[in-house]
Amino acid sequence: MSAAVQPAIVGATGYTGFELTRILLHHPRVRKPLLFRREAEAGTGFDLTETYPFFSGNGHGGLPVDAFSWSAMKERGVDVLFLCTPHEVSREWAIEAQARGLRVVDLSGAWRLKQEANRKVYGFKDANPSAASALDEIAAYGIPELHANAIAEATLVANAGCYATSIILALAPWVRAGLVDIAHGVICDSKSGVSGAGKTPSAKTHFVEVAESLSAYSVFGHRHIGEILEQLGLGDSQLQFTPHLLPIPRGILSTIYVRTKGNVTAHQLEQCLRDFYAGKSWVRVFGASRLPEIKFSLHTNYCDIGFSVAPDGKRVVLVSCLDNLLKGASGQAVQNMNVMFGWNEREGLQ
Amino acid sequence: MSAAVQPAIVGATGYTGFELTRILLHHPRVRKPLLFRREAEAGTGFDLTETYPFFSGNGHGGLPVDAFSWSAMKERGVDVLFLCTPHEVSREWAIEAQARGLRVVDLSGAWRLKQEANRKVYGFKDANPSAASALDEIAAYGIPELHANAIAEATLVANAGCYATSIILALAPWVRAGLVDIAHGVICDSKSGVSGAGKTPSAKTHFVEVAESLSAYSVFGHRHIGEILEQLGLGDSQLQFTPHLLPIPRGILSTIYVRTKGNVTAHQLEQCLRDFYAGKSWVRVFGASRLPEIKFSLHTNYCDIGFSVAPDGKRVVLVSCLDNLLKGASGQAVQNMNVMFGWNEREGLQ
Amino acid sequence: MSAAVQPAIVGATGYTGFELTRILLHHPRVRKPLLFRREAEAGTGFDLTETYPFFSGNGHGGLPVDAFSWSAMKERGVDVLFLCTPHEVSREWAIEAQARGLRVVDLSGAWRLKQEANRKVYGFKDANPSAASALDEIAAYGIPELHANAIAEATLVANAGCYATSIILALAPWVRAGLVDIAHGVICDSKSGVSGAGKTPSAKTHFVEVAESLSAYSVFGHRHIGEILEQLGLGDSQLQFTPHLLPIPRGILSTIYVRTKGNVTAHQLEQCLRDFYAGKSWVRVFGASRLPEIKFSLHTNYCDIGFSVAPDGKRVVLVSCLDNLLKGASGQAVQNMNVMFGWNEREGLQ
Amino acid sequence: MSAAVQPAIVGATGYTGFELTRILLHHPRVRKPLLFRREAEAGTGFDLTETYPFFSGNGHGGLPVDAFSWSAMKERGVDVLFLCTPHEVSREWAIEAQARGLRVVDLSGAWRLKQEANRKVYGFKDANPSAASALDEIAAYGIPELHANAIAEATLVANAGCYATSIILALAPWVRAGLVDIAHGVICDSKSGVSGAGKTPSAKTHFVEVAESLSAYSVFGHRHIGEILEQLGLGDSQLQFTPHLLPIPRGILSTIYVRTKGNVTAHQLEQCLRDFYAGKSWVRVFGASRLPEIKFSLHTNYCDIGFSVAPDGKRVVLVSCLDNLLKGASGQAVQNMNVMFGWNEREGLQ
Repeated sequence: MSAAVQPAIVGATGYTGFELTRILLHHPRVRKPLLFRREAEAGTGFDLTETYPFFSGNGHGGLPVDAFSWSAMKERGVDVLFLCTPHEVSREWAIEAQARGLRVVDLSGAWRLKQEANRKVYGFKDANPSAASALDEIAAYGIPELHANAIAEATLVANAGCYATSIILALAPWVRAGLVDIAHGVICDSKSGVSGAGKTPSAKTHFVEVAESLSAYSVFGHRHIGEILEQLGLGDSQLQFTPHLLPIPRGILSTIYVRTKGNVTAHQLEQCLRDFYAGKSWVRVFGASRLPEIKFSLHTNYCDIGFSVAPDGKRVVLVSCLDNLLKGASGQAVQNMNVMFGWNEREGLQ
Repeated sequence: MSAAVQPAIVGATGYTGFELTRILLHHPRVRKPLLFRREAEAGTGFDLTETYPFFSGNGHGGLPVDAFSWSAMKERGVDVLFLCTPHEVSREWAIEAQARGLRVVDLSGAWRLKQEANRKVYGFKDANPSAASALDEIAAYGIPELHANAIAEATLVANAGCYATSIILALAPWVRAGLVDIAHGVICDSKSGVSGAGKTPSAKTHFVEVAESLSAYSVFGHRHIGEILEQLGLGDSQLQFTPHLLPIPRGILSTIYVRTKGNVTAHQLEQCLRDFYAGKSWVRVFGASRLPEIKFSLHTNYCDIGFSVAPDGKRVVLVSCLDNLLKGASGQAVQNMNVMFGWNEREGLQ
Repeated sequence: MSAAVQPAIVGATGYTGFELTRILLHHPRVRKPLLFRREAEAGTGFDLTETYPFFSGNGHGGLPVDAFSWSAMKERGVDVLFLCTPHEVSREWAIEAQARGLRVVDLSGAWRLKQEANRKVYGFKDANPSAASALDEIAAYGIPELHANAIAEATLVANAGCYATSIILALAPWVRAGLVDIAHGVICDSKSGVSGAGKTPSAKTHFVEVAESLSAYSVFGHRHIGEILEQLGLGDSQLQFTPHLLPIPRGILSTIYVRTKGNVTAHQLEQCLRDFYAGKSWVRVFGASRLPEIKFSLHTNYCDIGFSVAPDGKRVVLVSCLDNLLKGASGQAVQNMNVMFGWNEREGLQ
Repeated sequence: MSAAVQPAIVGATGYTGFELTRILLHHPRVRKPLLFRREAEAGTGFDLTETYPFFSGNGHGGLPVDAFSWSAMKERGVDVLFLCTPHEVSREWAIEAQARGLRVVDLSGAWRLKQEANRKVYGFKDANPSAASALDEIAAYGIPELHANAIAEATLVANAGCYATSIILALAPWVRAGLVDIAHGVICDSKSGVSGAGKTPSAKTHFVEVAESLSAYSVFGHRHIGEILEQLGLGDSQLQFTPHLLPIPRGILSTIYVRTKGNVTAHQLEQCLRDFYAGKSWVRVFGASRLPEIKFSLHTNYCDIGFSVAPDGKRVVLVSCLDNLLKGASGQAVQNMNVMFGWNEREGLQ
């Protein structure tokens, strides 16, 4: 097996950059990733093994992190660029990367939304609005279970948000099959570990403030709402999404409340999920018999989905779990790369 | 201030028994509580300070736990009996205690339900059905903010469930005032710390199984549902209650989803809560501006309530928090005792 | 009981300031504490209940935090000033406070050390070296179990460090009684919860970095070493102190390794501890039979001490636990105030 | 690469059995492991994916757990048997397995000790004392970094204890090289996550009892002491080992206190470690510059070692970390198998 593809990561020192590096180091199809930081002061001998001693001892000869530059990118023959950067940076660099012929997987929210109205929450200030607009059109939304064809053709993949992935994967089969009563409203009560808030220290992520507590936040207006609406084809007031901050490092559990349409049975609901995800490697359908828990998918690229139907047959509680740094970010990014390059979607992720 | 009332606790070695003991030791109106275990083998020199060295050093001269007997109860002049016992035990002993003229606060689910249909989930097998039935009639439901008068008159108070307290206190004001659209359905997504599962070791409470995870359980059919339905006057299919097990020792947060009726405003909703709880010591209304977090009410007897209204003005997310061992159990039990004896409801709880 | 004494706290928004405020609000001998921040921008309507909703609902009418000024201090008749400030600030303000006739309890490391050599680690730059030097002489070291008389006379008490308190209380009785072989060396392996690192967010206190891990730090050269050496009369190379960062919010456990001298027995060791702490409210001697655990003293002002002797009778493992924010900081500060004012040392701390 | 070797695991449902199964499923040199439970009632359709849904979705066609029998073992052509069984069971079955020509890696303490006196703590009651005695002689102690040759020849490997591995790997190089003053005494203060206590629920492993606390236990007389003494050649009173229970699921950190001999320098100490572990895959030497933390080796098979020397040049604090379920148990068991079969010791563990 040849490993001829050269990946690069910008933003290698954050949590998603770390996970991406870890995965790519063992990916049989790619070379050792080049690592970059946005900051100019980087590149002076900084090595990722200093930040993450996890990485030492693997015999890979160090993981230097260089200051980002397009010339470095070119010289070293980068084929695919992973952007673990803030959305305003991704918004700019993805355009440049495309112009230079690089394939890009962007892990920010910069390119996920198709509708101008939904993009407003990010407040993008594009230097080149027409280029940005053109890219908005062609960017593929990065959930391979839903958009494998588009991703296979794409030069820019907008890796889906962590919360959004957990919700969209759980609901898409039933919504597409028309089994649930969207008009009644869909409620998504999601709970996430702290790594979802990033690596920058803040009052919100201080150990003493998080441990032994639980809190809801961004109750109306979380940035992932737009993705969920667009991917599921819901109207604004049909979706309620409430994220909570869990006192654990990683993992997401979404509890989703929907009503069935007509005489839909639990069996139909389960079959719909099983059919939809047949042949997909990274979704495990628990069905109507058992609900997933965060620990089952931790440190894996799986999204686990289970549900339970009320005795009245109408109300359904749907539970979906994933590791926010893997299927919710870096694992899915690699899965997207696999699809872009025509490889098996399990490659490097087992 | 005289401390002439003599309390006793049966089941003093569990988590709620411990908290109750701790509170009563410092309660200015009562004598040092007598402690009992149901097991016959108790009483042979067992002292609560062995199980809970927390208690040593308070100069109270030991906390012996004796084997339960009605004669011991009588000899030592017990006035009020706290039952921290399984519901089947409470179901039997409360009848006997009443016959002996003792006032009882029962912390189990034995006497909370007025409707036969709701009691079925417990599967009570009453030795004396007519006595049980009579007591079912007169038992007061133990949330003082809702039933102060009944509790003041009662000889048996059925201390409310922990989840139920968090949900009923949050919703009762709006439901009673007719501000929310019950017919659309009410969804309660609750999360509780592990002490709610009791002190008996099990796979479910093993540290390694709980830490770093989150799980939903009893998705349809949790025992607290009956209390919530009865207290709020809801129909079976109008309430969805999903409890989750949080990786923290104590604390409950309930996220509640309702729709408003007509043109109800956020201001009206807030005012309704403030009016309802005016003069009540143990509910803090955060209003529409801030949501409570578990840590705010931890180690206190408060129930904290806040909410947020969607831009569309119709959908409301209501959040309520409390400490499951205090306002959710032993703190509320003492508050109930305070009301039963005509004392200030803050007595001993500050 | 009159509550004629007016306390003030500078640095009321940190963890120790919070705990101090909480205790003083319920202390029967003092008025509601005045709260100050060092920053000039404070005082514009800032209230502690915003930072700590824990505080709301107590009927105390708000907890405004004002910008610090000596004139405010005078106007409002402050009697005793608690400094929860960085040591360089305490070093300066304690001098001014003394000049103005205020009694001071300083929670920083500014005034704990009697020997110039030990003070070097702090790098004090005193504007008025002779005033500082004079105050160094008269400051009382704030562990009431060891220095009650000095504290009762003092106008400035240097509240002991959290680690230092756990180690000094455990060892002082045996060292003073000459029961242990100091020359062989004393090893203190201490573990502390994260609140000991303060409230300022940093990589070191980020939830994801702390949770599920454990690390040793400041292996040689931690600032508390000087206090321990001075209080126990040890030479530099006789003490090894290694602090570790525990993934819990609060609590300290110190495991201390010493060798006994001559034919000292376990009984003598236990009796020595019991005699030393007879009549002292805030130390619980577990003796040779049981070792304390962090949870026993959590949320209390106790320091718990237990030990175990090797079969060879020579090697002893001594374990001491306390809550770093209470007996390790704010609780002890109030205990010191109690002693300064001639009150019972339990006042306000039960 | 042929995967002709057939492994079997007895005790597949515990924590070490789970980790072993996980590793072997991806090991390129072995077939899918056969799983057994000791209990007779097993084997009736029980599948490991029920207990550990982690395992589902890997396309391996289920992980049935059968009731243990020697005939099943023979029929299915087992080559190497992993015993994740209590020591009294291992003590018996290892003898039978040897008689049947199976290679055995035993994860219990049954065969680790060479000296009769050290074995006493286990209280073995051998049915066939002479067979047991013969096996005691030939069993290889399972730390490949120290006994690679013996392990390569062995038919029975006694996988080392988790605490013992962390301490022996850290100290062996210096002790063998005579760099440390053993006569002064060696103190090992170890801290372990809860999975080290096994999967059986107990008061000791109840979430509420462990979370937010820390405790020392088995202060004198822990079973791992014998291994450490024998492997390092220490006398009884030269070693102090104190284990502590950490509120985390997994990971061990040992803080070890020793004194150097003569004029040994930090450089010599570091060089000694580096020389000793040159070419060894699973020990990472951090040297004198940085101390390892538990999180660095979590979910890996590494043992990380770092140290710090006091300014006086005599006292050394040595810190060693590992994942108790990997390098402390199942990872090392696979490493031992790799050495037994002449494979690269990294095989299957990356």
